[in-house]
Amino acid sequence: MTPLPPGSTIGILGDGQLGRMLALAAARLGFDAAVLSPDADGPASRVAARSWVADYTDPAALEELARAADVVTFEFENVPVAAVERLEALGATVLPGRRALAVAQDRVAEKTFMLEHGLETVDFAPVDDSGSLAAALERIALPALLKTRREGYDGKGQAWIEVAEAAEAAWAEIGGGPAILEARAPFVRELSVIAARGRDGSVAIYPAGENRHEGGILRETTAPARSAPELEAQRIAETVLSGLGYVGVIGVELFELADGRLLVNEIAPRVHNTGHWTQDACQVDQFEQHVRAVAGWPLGPTEPHSAALMQNLIGEDAERWAELAADPSARLHLYAKREPRAGRKMGHVNRLQPRAAP
Amino acid sequence: MTPLPPGSTIGILGDGQLGRMLALAAARLGFDAAVLSPDADGPASRVAARSWVADYTDPAALEELARAADVVTFEFENVPVAAVERLEALGATVLPGRRALAVAQDRVAEKTFMLEHGLETVDFAPVDDSGSLAAALERIALPALLKTRREGYDGKGQAWIEVAEAAEAAWAEIGGGPAILEARAPFVRELSVIAARGRDGSVAIYPAGENRHEGGILRETTAPARSAPELEAQRIAETVLSGLGYVGVIGVELFELADGRLLVNEIAPRVHNTGHWTQDACQVDQFEQHVRAVAGWPLGPTEPHSAALMQNLIGEDAERWAELAADPSARLHLYAKREPRAGRKMGHVNRLQPRAAP
Repeated sequence: MTPLPPGSTIGILGDGQLGRMLALAAARLGFDAAVLSPDADGPASRVAARSWVADYTDPAALEELARAADVVTFEFENVPVAAVERLEALGATVLPGRRALAVAQDRVAEKTFMLEHGLETVDFAPVDDSGSLAAALERIALPALLKTRREGYDGKGQAWIEVAEAAEAAWAEIGGGPAILEARAPFVRELSVIAARGRDGSVAIYPAGENRHEGGILRETTAPARSAPELEAQRIAETVLSGLGYVGVIGVELFELADGRLLVNEIAPRVHNTGHWTQDACQVDQFEQHVRAVAGWPLGPTEPHSAALMQNLIGEDAERWAELAADPSARLHLYAKREPRAGRKMGHVNRLQPRAAP
Repeated sequence: MTPLPPGSTIGILGDGQLGRMLALAAARLGFDAAVLSPDADGPASRVAARSWVADYTDPAALEELARAADVVTFEFENVPVAAVERLEALGATVLPGRRALAVAQDRVAEKTFMLEHGLETVDFAPVDDSGSLAAALERIALPALLKTRREGYDGKGQAWIEVAEAAEAAWAEIGGGPAILEARAPFVRELSVIAARGRDGSVAIYPAGENRHEGGILRETTAPARSAPELEAQRIAETVLSGLGYVGVIGVELFELADGRLLVNEIAPRVHNTGHWTQDACQVDQFEQHVRAVAGWPLGPTEPHSAALMQNLIGEDAERWAELAADPSARLHLYAKREPRAGRKMGHVNRLQPRAAP
């Protein structure tokens, strides 16, 4: 039944901060959340009506989740496709769905998808063995970035290759498994677009944000990005959404080149850290938007009422909570993670400014 | 320890929509919620990290709550004072505290408190037996409103007396127990003020809202109220807060008379339905404000970025959820109550407008 009536249950695979914020958004609309994750006592399960601690492929847990949930979604892209297949075999609806997961989980499949849909990426070549590594080095100009073909986030599982002689060592460093060699993008800035597609195929797109990373980890997003090529960014997001038959919120990371062209860096088939600014600057934020989409509700408006600067609180940054709580210009969001660790995202702050005239 | 660090647990007595929205606000700040209520499967417990289904005075449940929670608060004013006393004996901090509860639970004590603090109310007289009922009828002009001295909400437990001969029947109708006879207030409109006081005695007050009731139940709040006597409303709120040694958010209902005077109608020692507009029109809403106050955090800003019309969804109103979900001007909040019943608050909608210049 769609749209799902209030009182329905939204199943969530994953028990991190994105699941927590999804569960909170679902609760505002009168839904219950049900969380499945191998980790006990995570941020999402503590605001969910039900939760199970089990492997994502645990048959009994998947059966209970399929029975409890009226739709199942996920908070991260490395959910095993087998879990989704099992849920679907049990009659559950899983959104954004297997195709989006399969494309997003494999960097070669992801970039190939973009090219097939007329979207630009950096030059790339698959690396599976020494022969394909040598072939890749002939095609891709150095320095180039070697990444694991699957997994890896926040800068993990990647190594720069400056000279061809160092390539084998770099490949060993990232594990020596299936990989991708990517040309360096001569970008002037990194943008991202948070977009949503409903079950009825309708699309809603937030203005692009400008991102600043440090050490491979997102530090800040400024949104709306100044003088961003919004129409082109929207065209790319729409192409990705319709090409994947996507339902839900997606994050599309873009490289803006000096000549104004946009390359697709990567997609995240879920709510995205670069969309957290929407929580305080928009009437409907990315979390409610995702819940609306997977529940078959109409999408909400995406026009921000304010401009925003989102700053991540990473590791010991979160120790500044008392100072931030006292700052009337800071909207504080904390994830209730039990253990702060270096490099771990512990929360974020949104700072609003009046919107400049477009 | 105060301010309570993120990761602390906020205990909540009561499992309704106010507890739910408090728990959601606590979660955003990195707190866990723990809910105690005699009702199973209510709106708040389904977003709480822990919950107990037990009488409010159940010793074992209170002991567990006292152990789990770093501070305990309540979502409604009819929590037994004995429960609060027991929690305090177990070493728990309960806020807003016993004094506020005792004053708010007894309509005679409440109005007496106002008079003692120089605030105006309607004329009133206690009714305990036929003799005091007769005495009250001599002092208070008819028509007058007879109310139970304790309990009663949304228009329940009250009866209008038009002629003295009908007084005994009216008293029997509301149960024949301790009561209060209140003069009719010649008000031109009903206003309310949502205000907060921190553990450090600091005060933060939202602009007054204008309320429209039907059949004793709040239907709408418009905020900020047009041309409201804000300074006088703030003075009243401050007087109540400091007089009670209050910590947390309070709702103060006011009658505005034709000559501009404000009478205190009643207080609610908790977050209040007439403050729901703050969720979408302010950076820090009444729920986060209450959590900040009881957690010993600094209070947040109260200046709205927008004007708002809050409309309650009562009983079958909530069946309009699909239409409201499709209305981009409506911010929908649903409470996930299992059974819609006539007169039951099922959700609310906030509609924002740009703020007029003050």
